[in-house]
Amino acid sequence: MSQTVTEFEVHDIRFPTSEQLDGSDAMNPDPDYSAAYLVMRSEDGSEGHGFCFTIGRGNDVTAAAIEALRPYVIGRPAPRTASDLADLHIELTHDSQLRWLGPEKGVMHMAAGAVVNAAWDLAARTAGLPVWEFLASMTPEELVSLVDFRYLTDVLTPDEALAILRAAEPGRAERTARLRRQGYPAYTTSPGWLGYSDEKLVRLAKEAVADGFGQIKLKVGGDLEDDIRRLKLARAAVGPSVRIAVDANQRWDVADAVRWMTALAPYEPHWIEEPTSPDDILGHAAVRAGQPVKVATGEHVANRVVFKQLLQAGAVDFVQIDAARVAGVNENLAILLLAAKYGVPVCPHAGGVGLCELVQHLAMFDYVAVSGSWEDRVIEYVDHLHEHFADPAQIDAGRYVAPRAPGFSARMLPQSMAAHRYPEGPVWQARRTIEEVNS
Amino acid sequence: MSQTVTEFEVHDIRFPTSEQLDGSDAMNPDPDYSAAYLVMRSEDGSEGHGFCFTIGRGNDVTAAAIEALRPYVIGRPAPRTASDLADLHIELTHDSQLRWLGPEKGVMHMAAGAVVNAAWDLAARTAGLPVWEFLASMTPEELVSLVDFRYLTDVLTPDEALAILRAAEPGRAERTARLRRQGYPAYTTSPGWLGYSDEKLVRLAKEAVADGFGQIKLKVGGDLEDDIRRLKLARAAVGPSVRIAVDANQRWDVADAVRWMTALAPYEPHWIEEPTSPDDILGHAAVRAGQPVKVATGEHVANRVVFKQLLQAGAVDFVQIDAARVAGVNENLAILLLAAKYGVPVCPHAGGVGLCELVQHLAMFDYVAVSGSWEDRVIEYVDHLHEHFADPAQIDAGRYVAPRAPGFSARMLPQSMAAHRYPEGPVWQARRTIEEVNS
Repeated sequence: MSQTVTEFEVHDIRFPTSEQLDGSDAMNPDPDYSAAYLVMRSEDGSEGHGFCFTIGRGNDVTAAAIEALRPYVIGRPAPRTASDLADLHIELTHDSQLRWLGPEKGVMHMAAGAVVNAAWDLAARTAGLPVWEFLASMTPEELVSLVDFRYLTDVLTPDEALAILRAAEPGRAERTARLRRQGYPAYTTSPGWLGYSDEKLVRLAKEAVADGFGQIKLKVGGDLEDDIRRLKLARAAVGPSVRIAVDANQRWDVADAVRWMTALAPYEPHWIEEPTSPDDILGHAAVRAGQPVKVATGEHVANRVVFKQLLQAGAVDFVQIDAARVAGVNENLAILLLAAKYGVPVCPHAGGVGLCELVQHLAMFDYVAVSGSWEDRVIEYVDHLHEHFADPAQIDAGRYVAPRAPGFSARMLPQSMAAHRYPEGPVWQARRTIEEVNS
Repeated sequence: MSQTVTEFEVHDIRFPTSEQLDGSDAMNPDPDYSAAYLVMRSEDGSEGHGFCFTIGRGNDVTAAAIEALRPYVIGRPAPRTASDLADLHIELTHDSQLRWLGPEKGVMHMAAGAVVNAAWDLAARTAGLPVWEFLASMTPEELVSLVDFRYLTDVLTPDEALAILRAAEPGRAERTARLRRQGYPAYTTSPGWLGYSDEKLVRLAKEAVADGFGQIKLKVGGDLEDDIRRLKLARAAVGPSVRIAVDANQRWDVADAVRWMTALAPYEPHWIEEPTSPDDILGHAAVRAGQPVKVATGEHVANRVVFKQLLQAGAVDFVQIDAARVAGVNENLAILLLAAKYGVPVCPHAGGVGLCELVQHLAMFDYVAVSGSWEDRVIEYVDHLHEHFADPAQIDAGRYVAPRAPGFSARMLPQSMAAHRYPEGPVWQARRTIEEVNS
């Protein structure tokens, strides 16, 4: 018998990461990594957790958007099956009045993603499986039923999606076993924040290689001479065989990106990430055509319709899904299928608060049941804030260890939530006291 | 001496329009036209009003987003000059933490638009001019300084924008005089809502012609046979020389749009509006190439970067700006310049609550100082809810009368705001009482 969802709690949680310049890049100089965090709870006490990731101010707006979705969840049977999860996703994203606020983009869409992901957490726990395995336990038909094909059918029909999933079906068991043994390839961004000194960059780059990572990433786009110096330093630190990706965080117009990357190309960056606006499909295509470095984007791409066009236009070499920007697992499944259709590798964005925890499940599911490959694929890893989670992402020798605990791995510890509640939590009270003393 | 802004009031105002099926279309069956409404006030009592338009649920989320912008306005000198208005626009849209919530799209971006538009209302009133004339009183250099060219320079540089504005400068006075005499061409959507009976459609279509409109619009996309019948009825009602546009409100995938419009083409619709997702640039281009009817879109286009690409891709025949979806006057100025560069007519979206009032200023300014033409251009007019405004849009013989009152024309009457406040206003209290009695 299905239990009814009776509680829906929304929390504004913020971490004062700007103090250390962790996460600093050319567009985001002082982020305070934050989560508008949802706990849904059913009659029997089962919980589903989900969240929107933000970088500080406006986290309250995102919390208000999640709050606006309460009526769609309270009184509903706790989601358990593919069909339940498909229905919830469609209800949240097709509500005409809420859809007006996007459509399918920005705050309201991210909030739908938080609710959808919380429902997946709850359903996977009820099934006793981590989300990646829960997904990989579904038939191709069930998986196709989870996807909203609206605006996709010129490029991907349900039948084509089914064919992709069926083609990957025979190898599922073998890849699951290999994933459990070997883990999934990762790269680390920890050395490369723009606010870090050269010394810190070199030290962390060397540590990354010692830790077994085959790829690191540097933030660029502040100053070209600085970027060249930092890229040289990093190359000297990691040696010739470790890949170095660079990330401009949307800093450039098309011509800037072409000029800058032409100048950085001799130092062999593996990809240039977010060279320009995430909305600029034709701009990304022009950047890709105009200079020799491969192009990656996706963490700020609003929805499956924009990803569809990035692939149609041949604008990207790597698709960087984000677990908490689009409308949750269901829309990310659509994006994985689109990427598989085009044979473009998915290299998820992570970092922030809890994004590593969530997105590892999607990449692992992609490996087991969609693309069937981890060739040229890596999940971003940033070694920040994992201590606040009950089932933190685990890295071993530069690879994500396949989660075994049921659910979506992103449950924040109660004591971490209590400490970082904004504005009343003790961490923020103390910060205000220090500011008052200093002023 | 500049006055400081000391008050920033945000109101959740909703009209129960779903009761009459006013505004019903294939995607939005039961909208309650709403405004998250901002009043900013300076020390001397000067006010600036602005708002986000929504269709009901979620209006509170938009209000929360406007509220999040309070710190950028309170304590600031009341904006008066192009330079003040440029600075405010950049601060609101470049704040890295808030930008994360879009970037430049959805709830947070619409909220920035409400604040920017309120600032324009205040500044134009201080100057004693309606916004269209206030804009048209600025030099080409001042106008260029208002635009954020980030992500546009591959298509439009500041120098090119300046050249467009300078080319239009000599005719400004003559066109201003003609605009005052003749008004700006309008079309009406009032006959065409999908929830209206055939009888009501025919009656209102005839009234539109009698009222002097040269174009009407019908909502389509629910059922093809119904659409053919309604288009035939409308054509019989208005005669051969009045244009009939049709609007699918994003209902279709690309192939549906091509099939449906191929079937409707014999009845000579003037344009097909929003055939598919507003994010689908390549989809619009495919629809335009795949069937004979001209393509219009824009009311849900998130920002100037997407408009840029719609023009680059040759995806649209008409650009439909919306006064309250993008980041206010400044971003709409960028879009007017992009359209002028491509020679594509701008036919603004209006209706809703107060959108006619706002957007007429932008179209009139475009005529006077940007494109310099009203050839093939029409502003949408919907005869709803104007009674709630102090300076309602005026239509005379199918044309918008050029506003003479200072400001942006969108000040809601205090008694209308009091009556429609959600959820506590008397209109909503009465509605709940009726629902309780009926249940």
